Amino acid sequence: MAVDYVPTGVPGVDKILAEKGIPRGHTILVCGGPGSGKTTFAIQFLYVGATQHGESGVYVTLEEEPSDIRTNMSKYGWDLKKLENEKKLVFINVSPVRVAPSERGLIQIGMKEFRLIKLLEAIKQGVKDVNAKRVVVDPVTIFTLQYPDEVERIYAMRDLMRDLRKTGCTNLLISELRGTGWEREHQFEEYLAQGVILLRTFLRGSKLVRVFQVEKMRGLAIDNQPRPYEISVEGIEVYPAATVYK
Amino acid sequence: MAVDYVPTGVPGVDKILAEKGIPRGHTILVCGGPGSGKTTFAIQFLYVGATQHGESGVYVTLEEEPSDIRTNMSKYGWDLKKLENEKKLVFINVSPVRVAPSERGLIQIGMKEFRLIKLLEAIKQGVKDVNAKRVVVDPVTIFTLQYPDEVERIYAMRDLMRDLRKTGCTNLLISELRGTGWEREHQFEEYLAQGVILLRTFLRGSKLVRVFQVEKMRGLAIDNQPRPYEISVEGIEVYPAATVYK
Amino acid sequence: MAVDYVPTGVPGVDKILAEKGIPRGHTILVCGGPGSGKTTFAIQFLYVGATQHGESGVYVTLEEEPSDIRTNMSKYGWDLKKLENEKKLVFINVSPVRVAPSERGLIQIGMKEFRLIKLLEAIKQGVKDVNAKRVVVDPVTIFTLQYPDEVERIYAMRDLMRDLRKTGCTNLLISELRGTGWEREHQFEEYLAQGVILLRTFLRGSKLVRVFQVEKMRGLAIDNQPRPYEISVEGIEVYPAATVYK
Amino acid sequence: MAVDYVPTGVPGVDKILAEKGIPRGHTILVCGGPGSGKTTFAIQFLYVGATQHGESGVYVTLEEEPSDIRTNMSKYGWDLKKLENEKKLVFINVSPVRVAPSERGLIQIGMKEFRLIKLLEAIKQGVKDVNAKRVVVDPVTIFTLQYPDEVERIYAMRDLMRDLRKTGCTNLLISELRGTGWEREHQFEEYLAQGVILLRTFLRGSKLVRVFQVEKMRGLAIDNQPRPYEISVEGIEVYPAATVYK
Amino acid sequence: MAVDYVPTGVPGVDKILAEKGIPRGHTILVCGGPGSGKTTFAIQFLYVGATQHGESGVYVTLEEEPSDIRTNMSKYGWDLKKLENEKKLVFINVSPVRVAPSERGLIQIGMKEFRLIKLLEAIKQGVKDVNAKRVVVDPVTIFTLQYPDEVERIYAMRDLMRDLRKTGCTNLLISELRGTGWEREHQFEEYLAQGVILLRTFLRGSKLVRVFQVEKMRGLAIDNQPRPYEISVEGIEVYPAATVYK
Amino acid sequence: MAVDYVPTGVPGVDKILAEKGIPRGHTILVCGGPGSGKTTFAIQFLYVGATQHGESGVYVTLEEEPSDIRTNMSKYGWDLKKLENEKKLVFINVSPVRVAPSERGLIQIGMKEFRLIKLLEAIKQGVKDVNAKRVVVDPVTIFTLQYPDEVERIYAMRDLMRDLRKTGCTNLLISELRGTGWEREHQFEEYLAQGVILLRTFLRGSKLVRVFQVEKMRGLAIDNQPRPYEISVEGIEVYPAATVYK
Repeated sequence: MAVDYVPTGVPGVDKILAEKGIPRGHTILVCGGPGSGKTTFAIQFLYVGATQHGESGVYVTLEEEPSDIRTNMSKYGWDLKKLENEKKLVFINVSPVRVAPSERGLIQIGMKEFRLIKLLEAIKQGVKDVNAKRVVVDPVTIFTLQYPDEVERIYAMRDLMRDLRKTGCTNLLISELRGTGWEREHQFEEYLAQGVILLRTFLRGSKLVRVFQVEKMRGLAIDNQPRPYEISVEGIEVYPAATVYK
Repeated sequence: MAVDYVPTGVPGVDKILAEKGIPRGHTILVCGGPGSGKTTFAIQFLYVGATQHGESGVYVTLEEEPSDIRTNMSKYGWDLKKLENEKKLVFINVSPVRVAPSERGLIQIGMKEFRLIKLLEAIKQGVKDVNAKRVVVDPVTIFTLQYPDEVERIYAMRDLMRDLRKTGCTNLLISELRGTGWEREHQFEEYLAQGVILLRTFLRGSKLVRVFQVEKMRGLAIDNQPRPYEISVEGIEVYPAATVYK
Repeated sequence: MAVDYVPTGVPGVDKILAEKGIPRGHTILVCGGPGSGKTTFAIQFLYVGATQHGESGVYVTLEEEPSDIRTNMSKYGWDLKKLENEKKLVFINVSPVRVAPSERGLIQIGMKEFRLIKLLEAIKQGVKDVNAKRVVVDPVTIFTLQYPDEVERIYAMRDLMRDLRKTGCTNLLISELRGTGWEREHQFEEYLAQGVILLRTFLRGSKLVRVFQVEKMRGLAIDNQPRPYEISVEGIEVYPAATVYK
Repeated sequence: MAVDYVPTGVPGVDKILAEKGIPRGHTILVCGGPGSGKTTFAIQFLYVGATQHGESGVYVTLEEEPSDIRTNMSKYGWDLKKLENEKKLVFINVSPVRVAPSERGLIQIGMKEFRLIKLLEAIKQGVKDVNAKRVVVDPVTIFTLQYPDEVERIYAMRDLMRDLRKTGCTNLLISELRGTGWEREHQFEEYLAQGVILLRTFLRGSKLVRVFQVEKMRGLAIDNQPRPYEISVEGIEVYPAATVYK
Repeated sequence: MAVDYVPTGVPGVDKILAEKGIPRGHTILVCGGPGSGKTTFAIQFLYVGATQHGESGVYVTLEEEPSDIRTNMSKYGWDLKKLENEKKLVFINVSPVRVAPSERGLIQIGMKEFRLIKLLEAIKQGVKDVNAKRVVVDPVTIFTLQYPDEVERIYAMRDLMRDLRKTGCTNLLISELRGTGWEREHQFEEYLAQGVILLRTFLRGSKLVRVFQVEKMRGLAIDNQPRPYEISVEGIEVYPAATVYK
Repeated sequence: MAVDYVPTGVPGVDKILAEKGIPRGHTILVCGGPGSGKTTFAIQFLYVGATQHGESGVYVTLEEEPSDIRTNMSKYGWDLKKLENEKKLVFINVSPVRVAPSERGLIQIGMKEFRLIKLLEAIKQGVKDVNAKRVVVDPVTIFTLQYPDEVERIYAMRDLMRDLRKTGCTNLLISELRGTGWEREHQFEEYLAQGVILLRTFLRGSKLVRVFQVEKMRGLAIDNQPRPYEISVEGIEVYPAATVYK
C-alpha cells in the first residue's frame, strides 16, 4: 500500500524529511531541553495543519494551562482561540485536578489507570469532536515517570503509541531531555517511537547554537545531519542546507 | 489580550528580554551556584520595582534570616528596612521554627502540608498586606527536596507555580545549581517554569567569568546567548552586547 | 569439522567478515542506537537469504508490529508479504497481548516463563513452518530487562542463545545501545554472543557519520576496524575499504 | 548598622576580602582536600586573632587529637599551649569516647542529640571560658554525615550555623572536598554558609599548584578570582595579585 | 628457594615477562573486552604448554560450550580434540545444567556452594586426570557476580585463588572488562591476583589498535608499558619493542 | 616537645620528606593501584628499618600469604626469613581462617569484633614480641569494606589509627585505589591519616609513567609535587628532582 505523508509546515523540516513530511499515522517523539521550542514546534504543526492543509488537531497538555499556551503562541501571530472556535483545534487538559495528598504519596495505581485509559478516552473524544488528523501530547515525560518499573514503563509507552496509531492521526509526543552535550544516554522512548526529532542547544566558541536533527524516521530516507534552527516571531525555521560545527 | 511586561530593573537584563522585561504574571526560575548573586538579583528586582515602578514586593525566605538579608544588601545602598516601613516590601520567614527531632526524621507529611498550604497562605497574606506585584521565593530547593518521590515533587512544584500565578504577581523562584561546567543535567523545574535565568561561573584561562543566560522565556523572543555579568557595589549588571568564550 | 559460512548479503559486510560471512549456526548481537538501521540490517539479512540463497527466515518482533515493518521496509523495494506468502519468511509477534495491570506491576514470573519458554516454542514452530535457516529477534533488550537480577539475566540470555543454536539456524539478536560516544560500558550480551556487530553514529566536525564495526566474530579472522556505512533506498551499504576518523 | 570586619591574619587573604576581612559574626565554610592546609588556615586565623587582635578562640575538633594539633602546628612556630595557658585559646574535643558497638551500628539518634545539642553547649562553654571572638569547627563533614536524610541534614547544618551566629563569634567550619578537578558538584553547605573559601590543588603541566578562592562572602564585594597560595614554615600565604592558569 | 618460570608460549609475551614467563604456581588475571582474544590467549597458553613444554592443561568453561571452543580454535590450526585424546588437555564444563527457575530467582546459596566447592573439586579432578600443570577458568566474572555482598565476593575470590595455588598449577583467570577507555575503575580481582594482564582496544585516529599490557606480575621485574598486539591465523602475537600512542 | 623523624629508607623519599622522613609515631596511608609497588614500598620501609636503623617491624597481612610475600620480595635480595629469625620482623596473618558461609552472608558483627579488637591485640602482641618500631597493615581496604555504614566506617578507621598511635610505632596503612586518572574522588581515609603517599601510573604519549606524590604529611613542610619513580631489582626508587608532565 502507498504511504501518505503529512507536511509539518515548519519551514525547512519537510525538506529534511525527504521533501515529504511525516508518514501519515506515525507517532514521532520530539525531544528538547527547556526553551528549545518544543511547544512552538508542536503548535506550529497543528496550526499549519489546520490553516493550510485542512487537518484539525488535538493538543493534550499535561503540564501547561491551555490559556497560557494561547497567550504564549500569540507572539507568533497564531490565533488559537479562533481555531478552537472553528472546531479546527481542541485542547485537552489532563491534569487540572489537584492531587489529594496521602501519606504514601499519590495513589499510584489510580493515577496510572487515569493516565493511560482516561488519557486515551479523552484523546479519542477530542479526535472525534474536531475530526482531528493531528495529535500532540505535551509532555509525555510526566506520563512515563509514573511507572517506576522500567519494563512496565516501556509497555505503557508502547500501549500509548499503539492506541494513538489506531486513531489514524499523525502524532507528536513531546519529551524532555535531561542531559546536555553531544554525548548522552538514549531514552527508551526513542526506540519505541516511529520517528525522533531532536531540538538541542550547544555552545560553539562564544555562541549558543540551536540544532535540529531527525535522528530517526521509519519508512523514510531522511537527512539525519544536524542542522541549525532559529525561533523568530514567525515560529521555528530550520536551515536544511546549513551545517553545524561541533 | 495584550501582554504586559515587568522591567527587572537589573541593568542589561531588560535589553536581553526583548527590551521589555518579564511577562507580567509569569513565574521565573533563577538558577545559580553559591556566590552567584541569586539573592542580589532577586532583591534588586524587588527594590527597583518598589522604588522606580511603584510595585511592592514579597520576599519569602526559606533559609536566610531577614535581618541578614537586610544587612548584606546594605552594601549596595539598598535600605530595605525603609521599604518595609513604607509598606513596599515585606519579608516572610517560613522556616524559623526549630524542627522537633524524631527517631524517623522530620515528620514529613506534616512538614509538607505546612510547606505548600501554609507557604501559599503566607504569600497571599503578604501580597495582600503590601498590595504586592512582585514575589520572590528563596530558595525553592529546600521546598522540593522534601518530596522524595519524583512525580509528587513535580506536582508540588506545578501546584506552587499555578497558585503563585493566581496572585497576579510576577514571581522569581531561586534555585540552587549543584553541578558546575557547561554540560549539565536539566532540573525538572526548568520545564515547569515559564522562564529560566542562569547565573553561572566558568574559568577561562586564568580568569573566572560570571555568565548570565536567559535559557527560556515563554511568550517572548529573547536573546538566549550567554552574556558576562558583574556584581559591583551597585548590584548586578549584565553586559548584553558582550560575548562569552568557552 | 569444516565450518560453513552464511553470507549476510549486506553490501560490504561479507568482505569484512573475511570474505565469508557469519559462521553457520552462530548467534550474533547487532547493537545500535535509534535510527541506526538495526531492523533494516536484520531484514536485509533475511531478505537476501530468502531471495538469493534459498534460506527462509523467522523474524521475532518484541516491539514493532509486523504490519509496520512490512510498510517501512517497502521503501527499499523489499516485498515482505510476498516472501511470507511463499513461505520464505514468517513473522512472530510475541507481545501483542495487552498486559493485565496489577498493583504490583506486571506478573513478573508468569511473564518470564512466557518469555523464555513460549518464545522458544514460537521460534521453533516458525523455524519448522518455513524450514528456516535464519532467525532474527528484535529487540532482545525488552527480554533482558525483565530479569532484574544480573546473574539471572545472564543465565536467561545464555539459555536463549544455546537454544537458538540448537535450531541450527544463524541468528541475529538486535540490541539497543543506551550510551553514545566512543567510550562506553560493554553490555554483558557482548560476552555471551558469538559475534558482535556495532551500528553507531558519531559527529565529526559538522557531519554525522554512521560507523559499522565487527567487534567480535568467533571462529573467524575479521577486520575489526570501524568502517563507514550508509542507508540508502537500497538498504544498508558498508564501505569496507574506507576509514573513519575520530 | 555598620558592619565590622575581622582580619583573618593570613597573608594575602584580607586583601582579597576587600582589604577588610570576614564580616564579624559570619560563619564561613573552608573547603579543601587532604593536605590542602585547612587546619593550618584555621589555626592561623585563631593564632593571629589571639596574638595580634586580642581575640580569643575556640577550636572544636571532631577528628584529630588536640595534642596532635599542638605538635603539628609547632613547625610554624605557633605555641598553642602558651595561648591555652593565657586563656586565649581553648580546644574542645567532641569525639574522644569510643563508640559502643551495637548490632545495628551506632546508636544514631543518641549520637545526633549528642552532636547538635552537646556540641553547641560545649562551644558556648568554651566561648564563655576564654571570652572567645573566633570559633573553628574541624571538620563539619563527620557531623553532617550522621544525618542520612538530606532534608534533615540541611536543617541540622542550618541550625548549627544559626546557633553559632548567636554566640557573636566569627566562625570557620572546615569541610572536606571529595572530588578533585575544576568541575565539581556544589555541596549544600556552600549555600547555607555566609562565605565559602576553597583550598584546592591542580596539576598544571608538570607542577602541582595550590589554588585559593573566595567563592562567596555575603555582605562584601570580594575578589572571587582563583589565586595561588603556598604553605611554608610561616603558615599559609596567598598571592592576591598572581593569576592561576587552567 | 629459587623461583621457576612458566613460558606462556604467546609470541612476544615472555620477552615482556623479563624473558622468563609467569612465576610457576601463580594465578594471573587476564582482563579484556569482547573480541579481545581472551579465550585465544588462554588456549594458546595451554596448547603451547601441552605441545612444546610437556605441560598438560585444564580448561574450565563457565559460559561457552567446549565444542564451540574446539571449533573456534581450529582456525589457528590448534587441534584440541587431539590434545584431549592424548590426555594433554581436559575441558570442564561447570554450567551445563539448566537452572531451575524459582519465584525468588536462582537458589543463591545452593548455587554458591556448587560454585566454589564443586568448582574446586572438578578442577582438582581434572588436574589429577591429566596431571595438569596449567589451569584456565573462563570467565571468573560469572562466578564473582553471584556474590552480591562485596566483602563476601572478595573472600570467595581469595579462597578460589588460594585453592588454585594449592594444586601447584600456573593459572589464568579470564575476566570481562566493562568499561572502555584509558581511564577506568580497577576491579578488586586485580588486587587479589598475583599478576594482571590487560587486553584492550583503543581508537587512534582512524584506526583501532589492540593493546597488551602487564599491569602487575608479582615476583618479577616486568616491562609494564602498553604494547600493540594482533590476532592472526597463528593466534595472538605481542610486539614487545613497539610503542602505543594515546 | 621536639619531633623525631623516621627515615623511610626508600631512595629519594626522605629527600621529599624535608630530608627527614616520617614523623615518628605517625600513621601514613600509602595508596596505589595494582602493580604500583605498595607492598614493595612497605617491605622496603621495614627492611631498611631493621637492617640499617635497628628498628624491628610488624607486617600485618589481610590478603596475601606471608610465604608469598617472602618469595616475591626475594627478587630484591631481601631475605625476610632471616629477619624473622633474628626477631627483627614478624608477620601477622589475620585472615587465614576460611569464613563459614551462611545464608545471610558473613556473620558481620562477629567479623567486625574480630577485625578491630583481635587485629589490635595481634598487632600489640607482635610489637611486643620483636620490640617493633614500625608497623604495616596491608591492605586496610578489606578492613573498611566490612563497615557498610559510612559513619561507622570512619569511626572504625579513626579508632584503628588512634590505637596504632598508642603503640608508639610509625605505621603504614596500605590502601587500594579504585579509580585511575588525575582527577578522582578523595577517600575518607586520606583525611584521617596523618600523611598520605600516592603511588600512581599515568600514560604520557606512548609511555606509562609511575608517579610518586606525598599528598599530605602533617607536621612537616614537604615537597608535594608529583615525582617519577621506578621499581628495579633494588626495590623502589623515587627521583625527587625530576618532573612529571601531564
